[in-house]
Amino acid sequence: MTHDAVEVISAKRDRRELTDSQIDWVVDAYTRGVVADEQMSALAMAILLNGMSRREIGRWTDAMIASGERMDFSSLSRPTADKHSTGGVGDKITLPLAPLVAACGVAVPQLSGRGLGHTGGTLDKLESIAGWRAALSNDEILAQLESVGAVICAAGDGLAPADKKLYALRDVTGTVPAIPLIASSIMSKKIAEGTGVLVLDVKVGTGAFMGTAEEARELATTMVALGHDAGVHTVALLTDMSTPLGLSAGNAVEVQESLDVLSGGGPSDVVELTLALAREMLSGAGREDVDPADKLADGSGMDVWRAMISAQGGEPGAPLPSARETHVLAAPASGTLSRLDALAVGRAAWRLGAGRARKEDAVQPGAGVVWHARPGDTVIEGQPLFTLLTDEPERFGGALQSLEGGFEIGDEAAYGRPPLVVDRIC
Amino acid sequence: MTHDAVEVISAKRDRRELTDSQIDWVVDAYTRGVVADEQMSALAMAILLNGMSRREIGRWTDAMIASGERMDFSSLSRPTADKHSTGGVGDKITLPLAPLVAACGVAVPQLSGRGLGHTGGTLDKLESIAGWRAALSNDEILAQLESVGAVICAAGDGLAPADKKLYALRDVTGTVPAIPLIASSIMSKKIAEGTGVLVLDVKVGTGAFMGTAEEARELATTMVALGHDAGVHTVALLTDMSTPLGLSAGNAVEVQESLDVLSGGGPSDVVELTLALAREMLSGAGREDVDPADKLADGSGMDVWRAMISAQGGEPGAPLPSARETHVLAAPASGTLSRLDALAVGRAAWRLGAGRARKEDAVQPGAGVVWHARPGDTVIEGQPLFTLLTDEPERFGGALQSLEGGFEIGDEAAYGRPPLVVDRIC
Repeated sequence: MTHDAVEVISAKRDRRELTDSQIDWVVDAYTRGVVADEQMSALAMAILLNGMSRREIGRWTDAMIASGERMDFSSLSRPTADKHSTGGVGDKITLPLAPLVAACGVAVPQLSGRGLGHTGGTLDKLESIAGWRAALSNDEILAQLESVGAVICAAGDGLAPADKKLYALRDVTGTVPAIPLIASSIMSKKIAEGTGVLVLDVKVGTGAFMGTAEEARELATTMVALGHDAGVHTVALLTDMSTPLGLSAGNAVEVQESLDVLSGGGPSDVVELTLALAREMLSGAGREDVDPADKLADGSGMDVWRAMISAQGGEPGAPLPSARETHVLAAPASGTLSRLDALAVGRAAWRLGAGRARKEDAVQPGAGVVWHARPGDTVIEGQPLFTLLTDEPERFGGALQSLEGGFEIGDEAAYGRPPLVVDRIC
Repeated sequence: MTHDAVEVISAKRDRRELTDSQIDWVVDAYTRGVVADEQMSALAMAILLNGMSRREIGRWTDAMIASGERMDFSSLSRPTADKHSTGGVGDKITLPLAPLVAACGVAVPQLSGRGLGHTGGTLDKLESIAGWRAALSNDEILAQLESVGAVICAAGDGLAPADKKLYALRDVTGTVPAIPLIASSIMSKKIAEGTGVLVLDVKVGTGAFMGTAEEARELATTMVALGHDAGVHTVALLTDMSTPLGLSAGNAVEVQESLDVLSGGGPSDVVELTLALAREMLSGAGREDVDPADKLADGSGMDVWRAMISAQGGEPGAPLPSARETHVLAAPASGTLSRLDALAVGRAAWRLGAGRARKEDAVQPGAGVVWHARPGDTVIEGQPLFTLLTDEPERFGGALQSLEGGFEIGDEAAYGRPPLVVDRIC
């Protein structure tokens, strides 16, 4: 059935539910360029402000999947499980997680994106490894999943092209924080990708896209329902993003931290979250008999990492790039680090060159922020608190400005560590 | 001060008031193409759904005026008064009104638009007169106001170019019915035009853009306040548009009806509204001593009409174009015409070719609808009720469909004529 852009926009503007036929038409027509960008952005704003029913979100997701190809992993000898994070600061979890789960006997097809704004991108981080390439064909993905068990690569243009176009539009039109659009964007790609199990890491806190726990919970519930409807075993963990993960935010610095984890060390929160997500993925795939902690201890996760990096042209042993300039920010007082704000740290890393302002920008592999204490740790006045890394020293000023008010040194007694995993939704 | 499109959109999205600086920037940047169409349409939808304060609307209007030139009529020997209608069906009032008011000694600079959708456009109607041209330079407008006293012409590109661009965008993005945007669009053009007195004819009813009397009243109140703030003597009449005005809707047919009025005849509602608006314009210009009814009776309004048409290249005495094909719809029963729906008649005229679907379409000068009874009149089964006019007989089907359910024949006792002028806001 044929519709008209103004008819569909007006329906949502006037708080009516869109019909299946209207949704199918508008998503398809937008993908083909029949509905113009200025029409879709008005519709996106109406969706943001007036909402969508569960039925509308489901249909919208299906229409975005139908705009492109679907991958099929049924020929693999192993079950598949994937993880998606809504994005946070210092969130390098995918890097140790994918090889670790593969080492436990479950294939991990991790089709990832690049960073935009203050949250880092998994592909940007991996591209700091010499020779590593993000672009793989579907045949290469399948072959690597069979031989190595884990792939982290760029999602091809063939998967949900409607989402690709809409995501770019939302980014410049103030229509990113709409739960129906976020949920359908994530789930259309993950369902089209063809994973059997999906574990969602939905972030809550200052460094997350969803400001409040309530919104994060609604997003998680919506995505889990979309996954179930599509026959994908889907679980969501709500995890804290008021504090950045680990001890670094950037590209090469986060690869180094991931290697520390795969070597059996690394910051305890990164290890904890990696294991929690790995257990969910294994449980969904029917492999709760394997303990992923053993695979960190015996080095088999690291073995898969090396194979995975090599298969994509990277040199696992090559030295990682480092920034040309460093600046140390010393602790201004003694006491307990009582707050370290994820958004402040994320913005600082971004301003140092670790992230991009526009899609076409390049990132600096060596740029980022390393912090030398985590909330709850004791610090002594004058000790290094942050090390800022960049190739361009003129960036230090902006980064220091971002960190202002982004941390507090106080009383040990006043500090209570919040739980890392806040809730589980299935 | 420099802003960013996403910042401004997000502020309105999150129900914050825009600052003066944000409004100035976004209107100017949109006019210059720095803010893209897809960004402005998202902002327009956020304004439509979240509203604007009186201060924001005033500033937005000022910013649109500042995007272009302002005309200045202070050199004229007479005061100036203009009228603006929010658009209705059969609304040819501008045609007899402008020369009539000029005949009373007040200059009328009537810068008009073309029709879009079911409401006709004043310029389209006048263009059915052989040789008449709508485009005048500012110098020609001034000279004609001095010599003839009345000008009806196209608003030049120099007046409020921001509004011109935004109006075209709103039309395709479902963001037309937003009171802040309608009010600022109308008032920016009228204030930039430089009239001393402005009378607004705000339509209420099925054939009007504002569906409810409450919305029409809010629009009128908003516009009157904007006019006062700009130092323009502004009054609004709320008038009924549930029934079309007069006995015809189209182009040449409405010119003919206007000539009937200027000859001292014509349908009583057209005469009534023309005189009511003329009295407001004269009163605002300090000429309440002149009775415009006298100027209809003595033919001096018609004299100005002829001079005005001639000054713009038209032949006032030339025969008006007529449609090649006619179709008569007979009354299906006897009784009193108890309802004649403005929207139904407007759509029928539009489908016959009197109006356009897209800005680039041409209109048929001879097309339209003539009705042979008005609500309250007695009709006999089988008498002609409507005459449909078009050059393309394949259009009759659609027009007849539009008229279905658009009129009712009932009991005389049940009919009560609603007032034409519903309210006056000043």
